Amino acid sequence: MSGPVVVDAMGGDHGPQEVVAGAVTALREHGVPVLLVGRAGEVRRELARHDAAGEIDVVHAEEVVPMTERGSGAITGDSSIAVGCELLAQRTGGAFVSAGSTGAVVSCAVRSVGRADGVLRPALAVALPQITGGASVLIDAGATSDPTPEMIAQFALLGASYAQLVLGVPEPAVGLLSIGSEPGKGNRLSRRAERPLASSPFRFHGPIEGHDVLAGTVDVIVTDGFTGNVVLKNVEGTVRTVLTMIAQAGIAGPEALREVARRYDPETHGGAALLGLSGTVVVAHGSSRARTIARACVVAHDLAGGGVVSRVRDHLEVEAVG
Amino acid sequence: MSGPVVVDAMGGDHGPQEVVAGAVTALREHGVPVLLVGRAGEVRRELARHDAAGEIDVVHAEEVVPMTERGSGAITGDSSIAVGCELLAQRTGGAFVSAGSTGAVVSCAVRSVGRADGVLRPALAVALPQITGGASVLIDAGATSDPTPEMIAQFALLGASYAQLVLGVPEPAVGLLSIGSEPGKGNRLSRRAERPLASSPFRFHGPIEGHDVLAGTVDVIVTDGFTGNVVLKNVEGTVRTVLTMIAQAGIAGPEALREVARRYDPETHGGAALLGLSGTVVVAHGSSRARTIARACVVAHDLAGGGVVSRVRDHLEVEAVG
Repeated sequence: MSGPVVVDAMGGDHGPQEVVAGAVTALREHGVPVLLVGRAGEVRRELARHDAAGEIDVVHAEEVVPMTERGSGAITGDSSIAVGCELLAQRTGGAFVSAGSTGAVVSCAVRSVGRADGVLRPALAVALPQITGGASVLIDAGATSDPTPEMIAQFALLGASYAQLVLGVPEPAVGLLSIGSEPGKGNRLSRRAERPLASSPFRFHGPIEGHDVLAGTVDVIVTDGFTGNVVLKNVEGTVRTVLTMIAQAGIAGPEALREVARRYDPETHGGAALLGLSGTVVVAHGSSRARTIARACVVAHDLAGGGVVSRVRDHLEVEAVG
Repeated sequence: MSGPVVVDAMGGDHGPQEVVAGAVTALREHGVPVLLVGRAGEVRRELARHDAAGEIDVVHAEEVVPMTERGSGAITGDSSIAVGCELLAQRTGGAFVSAGSTGAVVSCAVRSVGRADGVLRPALAVALPQITGGASVLIDAGATSDPTPEMIAQFALLGASYAQLVLGVPEPAVGLLSIGSEPGKGNRLSRRAERPLASSPFRFHGPIEGHDVLAGTVDVIVTDGFTGNVVLKNVEGTVRTVLTMIAQAGIAGPEALREVARRYDPETHGGAALLGLSGTVVVAHGSSRARTIARACVVAHDLAGGGVVSRVRDHLEVEAVG
């Protein structure tokens, strides 16, 4: 990869303290080169607590985007998110990790970081824990609302690379989220996406349905960014509703259910990765502690270093030649 | 309404025994006129057990569509589903209730029962229990995969009528399922649907998101049939996954969780209603016992008698005049 993992020191609920500790862990324990962006004074003070002031570079950014910001509205050019994305756009960094608001980070990155060669549109990948154990990738979870069938086939390739590089699945099976496997089922987009998916270089399982999303049916669940975002938030909301109902019924206390809640909060599982731009962006959960930030840095490094995007490009070049 | 509620005596996991008992209950306890369709010998034998042979008419249908059939493939003309739909098409019945396969009943009804005057496309309405207590209507849960914005506004009207007639909500609030409330969020279809929804004769709450589906945010969740079907099945699958995980972790036994599972199996809650055809179709869950069948007959009677479709037509006429 072309540079260090740029880490937004100001993102998340716990501020620079946890993020800086996570960046230090990523460097020292996992050998991931990192660079911190944020209020330089605060960040250097945190680095000093780990005796790491000489090991990690800091780029100053004065502003902090509030966690409640969901679009690009409040992102000023001197915020840590904007400066981080700019470092990615200039190829100073190979990846960007933030525990800031997903909506804000994604819209800023889509706007300022260019698309990788050959990639039509970016997609957001999220690892969802499965009932069978392990995790599957949901892609696109919200970056591109109205893709073409060809874009969906590219999302599937990006998702398959994620499954290989991050989840360690050698030959990922890809399922197209739809509403039935009978001929003619689905909507226009999903029906048209079947052909490019079937001719792509991965195992195409065929159409799957809403109940397959957590059932371990496939390793990669591919869909448009509208349906994917609705499904991701629907999983989160449904888990919350069921756990609340069980707690209210006195079947089990909130304490016993916390572990289930934590595991099924999809964003805790490696974060959401924005793929298809010239640099990889990983959004960690806002509540991330140091260990989760370190994990997000490793994921970002693996994705960027493993060439998640060049795999799509390779396939496109083969297609153009063939 | 124009005729009795036609009941598919052969649908469901428990056969004529439970369905006939439910039809008898609907007639005797709720005053709902019913007509049974199925193998006449078997049905009359069940009616005789309730001393109801003289009270309820029977129309013979020789074949039974298997519960595993999900499209219209195996539906022969002499199956109880096809004969029931035909009675609706001829206006002999005012509504049709079946505990058969949802996919089979819906595709047969869409094919053979005509659309009501002024209605562009039918939609499937399902009542989903909410975390706040009560229930909200999800519409369209799978009848029309690629609607226009105007169709979505009609689905909302049908859903609002369902909320009034079945759930007893006097002034239902309607939310459009989307992926964010900021301007420009959503996909092309959802953005274009906002205007016709905003000018419709109900409280339009605006866009909602996937986590609002069970959160009690609105009384009617309107979306296209593709997204709605994915969401409905995703709710079912997520509930199953969470309950299995809790049981596996030993936090609570399957017995204690059964009530939660039952309540959150969306189809148990009044069944799925196919609205917008010249007769109303209600699909009860395959596992329905007599009490649930009786409830489905009451829902079908309320929807048909309350003029769920004429309300949409009235609005269309007002629009044409205005």
